[in-house]
Amino acid sequence: MKLLNTLAPAAALVALPGLGLAQEGPTPGVNPSTDSVFIFNSLLFLIGGFLVFWMAAGFAMLEAGLVRSKNVTMQLTKNMALFSLAAIFYYLIGYNLMYPLGTWMVEGVLSGVWGPGVLEAVGVTADAADDYGYASTGSDFFFQLMFCAATASIVSGALAERIRLWPFLIFVIVLTAVIYPLQASWKWGGGFLDEMGFLDFAGSTVVHSVGGWAALAGALILGPRIGKYKDGKVNPMPGSNLALATLGTFILWMGWFGFNGGSQLAMGTVGDVADVSRIFANTNAAAAGGAVAALILTQIMYKKPDLTMILNGALAGLVSITAEPLTPTLGSATLIGAVGGVIVVFAVPFLDKLKIDDVVGAIPVHLFAGIWGTIAVVLTNPDASFGVQIYSIFVVGIFTLVASGVMWFILKATMGIRVDEESEINGLDTSELGMEAYPDFSKG
Amino acid sequence: MKLLNTLAPAAALVALPGLGLAQEGPTPGVNPSTDSVFIFNSLLFLIGGFLVFWMAAGFAMLEAGLVRSKNVTMQLTKNMALFSLAAIFYYLIGYNLMYPLGTWMVEGVLSGVWGPGVLEAVGVTADAADDYGYASTGSDFFFQLMFCAATASIVSGALAERIRLWPFLIFVIVLTAVIYPLQASWKWGGGFLDEMGFLDFAGSTVVHSVGGWAALAGALILGPRIGKYKDGKVNPMPGSNLALATLGTFILWMGWFGFNGGSQLAMGTVGDVADVSRIFANTNAAAAGGAVAALILTQIMYKKPDLTMILNGALAGLVSITAEPLTPTLGSATLIGAVGGVIVVFAVPFLDKLKIDDVVGAIPVHLFAGIWGTIAVVLTNPDASFGVQIYSIFVVGIFTLVASGVMWFILKATMGIRVDEESEINGLDTSELGMEAYPDFSKG
Amino acid sequence: MKLLNTLAPAAALVALPGLGLAQEGPTPGVNPSTDSVFIFNSLLFLIGGFLVFWMAAGFAMLEAGLVRSKNVTMQLTKNMALFSLAAIFYYLIGYNLMYPLGTWMVEGVLSGVWGPGVLEAVGVTADAADDYGYASTGSDFFFQLMFCAATASIVSGALAERIRLWPFLIFVIVLTAVIYPLQASWKWGGGFLDEMGFLDFAGSTVVHSVGGWAALAGALILGPRIGKYKDGKVNPMPGSNLALATLGTFILWMGWFGFNGGSQLAMGTVGDVADVSRIFANTNAAAAGGAVAALILTQIMYKKPDLTMILNGALAGLVSITAEPLTPTLGSATLIGAVGGVIVVFAVPFLDKLKIDDVVGAIPVHLFAGIWGTIAVVLTNPDASFGVQIYSIFVVGIFTLVASGVMWFILKATMGIRVDEESEINGLDTSELGMEAYPDFSKG
Repeated sequence: MKLLNTLAPAAALVALPGLGLAQEGPTPGVNPSTDSVFIFNSLLFLIGGFLVFWMAAGFAMLEAGLVRSKNVTMQLTKNMALFSLAAIFYYLIGYNLMYPLGTWMVEGVLSGVWGPGVLEAVGVTADAADDYGYASTGSDFFFQLMFCAATASIVSGALAERIRLWPFLIFVIVLTAVIYPLQASWKWGGGFLDEMGFLDFAGSTVVHSVGGWAALAGALILGPRIGKYKDGKVNPMPGSNLALATLGTFILWMGWFGFNGGSQLAMGTVGDVADVSRIFANTNAAAAGGAVAALILTQIMYKKPDLTMILNGALAGLVSITAEPLTPTLGSATLIGAVGGVIVVFAVPFLDKLKIDDVVGAIPVHLFAGIWGTIAVVLTNPDASFGVQIYSIFVVGIFTLVASGVMWFILKATMGIRVDEESEINGLDTSELGMEAYPDFSKG
Repeated sequence: MKLLNTLAPAAALVALPGLGLAQEGPTPGVNPSTDSVFIFNSLLFLIGGFLVFWMAAGFAMLEAGLVRSKNVTMQLTKNMALFSLAAIFYYLIGYNLMYPLGTWMVEGVLSGVWGPGVLEAVGVTADAADDYGYASTGSDFFFQLMFCAATASIVSGALAERIRLWPFLIFVIVLTAVIYPLQASWKWGGGFLDEMGFLDFAGSTVVHSVGGWAALAGALILGPRIGKYKDGKVNPMPGSNLALATLGTFILWMGWFGFNGGSQLAMGTVGDVADVSRIFANTNAAAAGGAVAALILTQIMYKKPDLTMILNGALAGLVSITAEPLTPTLGSATLIGAVGGVIVVFAVPFLDKLKIDDVVGAIPVHLFAGIWGTIAVVLTNPDASFGVQIYSIFVVGIFTLVASGVMWFILKATMGIRVDEESEINGLDTSELGMEAYPDFSKG
Repeated sequence: MKLLNTLAPAAALVALPGLGLAQEGPTPGVNPSTDSVFIFNSLLFLIGGFLVFWMAAGFAMLEAGLVRSKNVTMQLTKNMALFSLAAIFYYLIGYNLMYPLGTWMVEGVLSGVWGPGVLEAVGVTADAADDYGYASTGSDFFFQLMFCAATASIVSGALAERIRLWPFLIFVIVLTAVIYPLQASWKWGGGFLDEMGFLDFAGSTVVHSVGGWAALAGALILGPRIGKYKDGKVNPMPGSNLALATLGTFILWMGWFGFNGGSQLAMGTVGDVADVSRIFANTNAAAAGGAVAALILTQIMYKKPDLTMILNGALAGLVSITAEPLTPTLGSATLIGAVGGVIVVFAVPFLDKLKIDDVVGAIPVHLFAGIWGTIAVVLTNPDASFGVQIYSIFVVGIFTLVASGVMWFILKATMGIRVDEESEINGLDTSELGMEAYPDFSKG
């Protein structure tokens, strides 16, 4: 997303004809051209927003499918809780931090609860549209919130099967209230990275790598699952429900049209809707490229295609195109995505070699492919600077890794972040929640 | 929804500029301002409609996940059948009953099958738009139908695991053809409750409590499952697939954006699209509030968070905001939803104390939170009258409870509504349908 | 879809007012009426496109639910891979073949990879809209691609549980790159069937029967599963997860609103959006009709409703209305769909009698109901010619059956298409992929 960049010209576009039409105005109260632009833009946020919301379900299903059956209820609980907490804390703190307008901050926290909040008043008139910019604030907030929540979803998968619920949720609150919005403001809030010319259209870095860095910090501090790495060997712990994992991947793929397409932030002109269309097509192409690359590569390397790699390959393709889904051709989008798929196939065993236990492959998909996607912007967008892209990856990465690491350390030192050994072996569902996900089915 | 209220000003808005532009008309056949309003409004119904359709899948997954594995096929069959029957009978009878225009009624039943029905003719011209009001009839019908079907979906969960298929489906026909449309006409058809000033934006009462009352009547007459209440104890009968139940909740949450957002009934002006945006954001906030309230409350009360309570808490939050999703601020929407979550946590054991066996928690979610949501309108909407809200809750409640009760009694007396004891113990899937949902997996 | 038919008047509509407004133009760069039409049309493709994309998930879940648990991973792998390959090969070859513009072909294959491809340049201006017709090429490509992929999805279900992965995927490449686009060009590319007056609005023949014919050719050459037909008896091999199959059906039903509604190809005028609305309502009615017909018929014939028949009945209803979802009334749409449901109930045992083993019922649903739907056009659309419809069904059918048959024979003769007996009995998941879908659950 390129919010502030777009705001200026869009506002000009909206403001100008308002005068002209007001003079001759054949339509009392309805100003066709500017109103349509405002409505189309808001509608893009609403459609994009519910599609990105849908990704929360995608993460939940992907993760529930990739953990063992004894930890499924916990994984579902985490996903439902993290999204809900993100919604509350991004509203209370994050959104205001990300678009730092002092009065909003105060209003949001102090009077926003029962008094007038950040959204437009009910039934605003067309004249008032100028005050709100080029789309409704409510639609923008709705859309932005979903991105913040997605960042938190990324973390939950990597740390599955051993982390305690409440420390994880406290981390989510800090992530969505402070860490994510702060670094997002550097780019999407018009901050210093944006001023340097950093390009990250829909957030390969701002969303995905941030989720990945936070997950990496957590995985390092939390340590691997018991028995995962023993006697120099990596013990596979296969996911309990690949149908759910595949469903989750399809859901994420679908939601990504909103994630990337909505990040055009406008569709009220021919140029904007044509761009949104390019983005939809490119996003799809990159996912396909990632999936096919993983399909072929696992066939070659292991003689058998690996479904979980194909799923993660598709997701890595999606992450890879997220920093620049607009300028590539369909062919280059496919190839950029394919590189993402290749990264995943090599990165998963690489992390295992380092004994970093990432249950669902979130770090390869969101961090490694996110870095690749951010770099790949220079391949198709002449406005991108290789140096600035690298610099921004580092700045965001170091900030998130340090901030997350500090937070994980505090949580570890104070309340503890890991369940005890017996609980982990028995599964978090019975030990922590007292509720099995599939109680009617005996375990094999 | 506030159909008739909106129709008048919207029609005026549409009618006026039609003249002005017809005079100078640079665009033959295309009237930008009024056409755009008509198209945007219809599009809102179409998007809202497919999102509310999606809720049918949400109910099916939620219920299939919360029943025991031996009753899953039956629950799926009921959900697929009830939606299909609702579609047919709401078309044949309900829609005409709800918006009582005599000629439609006659046309719909007698000549609508092969002759001209209620929808616009193919390829209507822009001039004809005036005849159809402010949005296409087809889009309005599509949207309204989904609300009627949702009401029936609510009933099926509460009565699961013991009711026979056909009596249930006959009840669904009566509910969707007569009971729902009749009471809905009192508010959304411009009837006496609407004239009194009853406010129920998207149907906390008209849809959710009606489904809840019908379920309550059925649960009372049907009685609890064998073994549920024995020796003064409540025996838990845990759902067989919490991943499905969570998926169902996410689906319902997503569909609710269409349910509430579409009930604005218009998005062709700046004010309307800004309101739809507010509604999306508030709907999300209320669901989050309900989920977090249930999360914290079950942690405090039972020392362990309860996933099924969290899921129902989110749904109760959604029901709570449905009567008024527009006027609250984000903060108040969160709190209104949170109260819904609290209600669920207390209402589920309360119903068990009364030995009312509601398998999925539909009565707490849709009836109790529906009542709360209808009352909560007075907190944020100055046009609401506490007395009228209470009066309307009672009128709709008594009517639905009595009408449903009579229907359930007739079905019980004539064909019987409950499977025999052996069938219930063996599960409805083998006894009634001869088809298991998960035949490859041995039961634990 | 009726692409070329629509293009001419739409282009005229768009071109004309462009001049008028350019003269007085109060809005620099924004041409309200024509821009809105262009944006609405493109938006219809985008919404329709992501809904049809969603059908890929629907097919995956339906098929994963209807195969036995030992073949679920393979079925998921096939669905994820076939969609991805379809995306790539329809881009590289199919799209250009379907809309035969020589330069696109060359550009697409040779320079499209890194150079300018088939999509509009980034940030096209409003003036340039005329060059691109009535909607953005990107949105059209995105929408068309999904139809091509759906055709391939149909094949995978019928041939499940015995076909090898790679020969199947090679067939998918040929189907999506050549077979589908070639015959689709005869109708939707403005070819000879279109010129004769063949009517197939959204593809009962062009998409569904083509998938069905390709599946039939494959099923005949591949032969039935081991043990399916033994000693003159048909051994039922029940699906492992009816909840997934039901979810898949709901997903497909939802996606079909985009499939049929998007095939109106325009919603920028009052007439178009009203038509899209009719289509949504009719599509829903037909699905309901198919489901209820199967519900009642299986109750009568077998004394017990059959959920898998109800699911396939709904899908057959959807296929039946696909050739003409616009002209029927709601009543006739319901009946057309109901006939589809009846066809399925009789066709499934009929195929078994012929020892044609179609694992999920894809041939009854997509081929038989597709033929019925294509014929049913004459019942409600006076422009349809019975002879032309029949002729087109035959032409497309023979072409697809022969082309697919030749391809299957070549694959059988060269690399072999069927797994060995032991692998089939043990299940394709362990033998071919080494990965179980539900490893934690013991088999019954």
